[in-house]
Amino acid sequence: MQQDAFQRIMRAQADYVRCIDQDRLEAWPDFFTEDCFYKITSAENHRLGMEAGLVWADNRRMLQDRASALRNANIYERQAYRHMLGQPWVAEETESGAVAETAFMVLRITRDGPTDLFASGVYLDRYRFEAGATLLAERVVVLDSSRIDTLLALPL
Amino acid sequence: MQQDAFQRIMRAQADYVRCIDQDRLEAWPDFFTEDCFYKITSAENHRLGMEAGLVWADNRRMLQDRASALRNANIYERQAYRHMLGQPWVAEETESGAVAETAFMVLRITRDGPTDLFASGVYLDRYRFEAGATLLAERVVVLDSSRIDTLLALPL
Amino acid sequence: MQQDAFQRIMRAQADYVRCIDQDRLEAWPDFFTEDCFYKITSAENHRLGMEAGLVWADNRRMLQDRASALRNANIYERQAYRHMLGQPWVAEETESGAVAETAFMVLRITRDGPTDLFASGVYLDRYRFEAGATLLAERVVVLDSSRIDTLLALPL
Repeated sequence: MQQDAFQRIMRAQADYVRCIDQDRLEAWPDFFTEDCFYKITSAENHRLGMEAGLVWADNRRMLQDRASALRNANIYERQAYRHMLGQPWVAEETESGAVAETAFMVLRITRDGPTDLFASGVYLDRYRFEAGATLLAERVVVLDSSRIDTLLALPL
Repeated sequence: MQQDAFQRIMRAQADYVRCIDQDRLEAWPDFFTEDCFYKITSAENHRLGMEAGLVWADNRRMLQDRASALRNANIYERQAYRHMLGQPWVAEETESGAVAETAFMVLRITRDGPTDLFASGVYLDRYRFEAGATLLAERVVVLDSSRIDTLLALPL
Repeated sequence: MQQDAFQRIMRAQADYVRCIDQDRLEAWPDFFTEDCFYKITSAENHRLGMEAGLVWADNRRMLQDRASALRNANIYERQAYRHMLGQPWVAEETESGAVAETAFMVLRITRDGPTDLFASGVYLDRYRFEAGATLLAERVVVLDSSRIDTLLALPL
């Protein structure tokens, strides 16, 4: 069935967060193009136009390295995450891709402990549509809060 | 208008959570097929492949009994719930049904008191598409947390 | 591309919450028709059929005044909001409009401070579809909680 950009993005997002929340870290880079750009930054730094980010990668290889580092850090043993996304706001859409923004929030569940609100913000995305795939050519994760201490624990 | 599985499921989900959040417990079983399977379990027990659940039903009649029991327990007088769902991840879709997963979180609102995060997790669903209806043939509710004390209070 | 009511509403909602969360208060009334009705009330007052609301407007001009008042009160300097919406439940849909309900929750982010759950509830909406625009002819915001002290701080 022919899908428009809106639905394509929603389906891709559902797939993406499912991957992370199921702790399939190693598959996470597969949602990106080989020459992707990925950054995590705070709303304040984003507003100020600061280039640097908490996390910064300009190709998929770097995301794979990051996934390995997270796995070796072994943080996932003790906690789980649950991403909840809003509807995408589609700024541009063509046959070959789209530019979109999607709000997100992430819950952190500690084993037998409380569940708390871990992070919220917005994904600024550039998608590339390929046959059978909806890939992220760019994702800038803008966090609402500047409180970022433990944030390096998971992909966003 | 012809709808695909993705939209059909989203519409059915919106209807389902609205029913619960409006405290129309008695209508809740109507979202299921007569021979449905319904279970609530924790992520840990689900991972271990444990068959038993916190709640377990293998037909709609049992869901009706459960709705009556909850009504008689009179818990709803004092609190309300608000379900928020993610986008469905559709694993399979045919003319007659679909297999899908949908993340959820539930807020609990106590009268004049605080609102807290009550539960989060994922619905593992099997849908049956009938003329004019999108019914759950199976819903396994996998809770992120193993903290489940008061959880029996509402359908999920 | 031809869109049905469901997708039209989802796109409009994404646009609406993005406007508020980006602190573009002055653009917020543009999502409404000139003769719109807007009200914020509590679930309890709504159930009792009380006409009055915490906020009440029966045209767009009043929403513009409200946006100005909020701007002058200067509350936005210190905190940010993040709206998360559920899928719309579409009660009626025609070529020219729709009646729908959408669950929402709002997070409040204080600068360098904690993020908390600010409000949850449901939008009871009446949409008017115009060429290239999906406008709110009516929005009744029903808050789950009766705790409403600081709530006047933002549009919902």
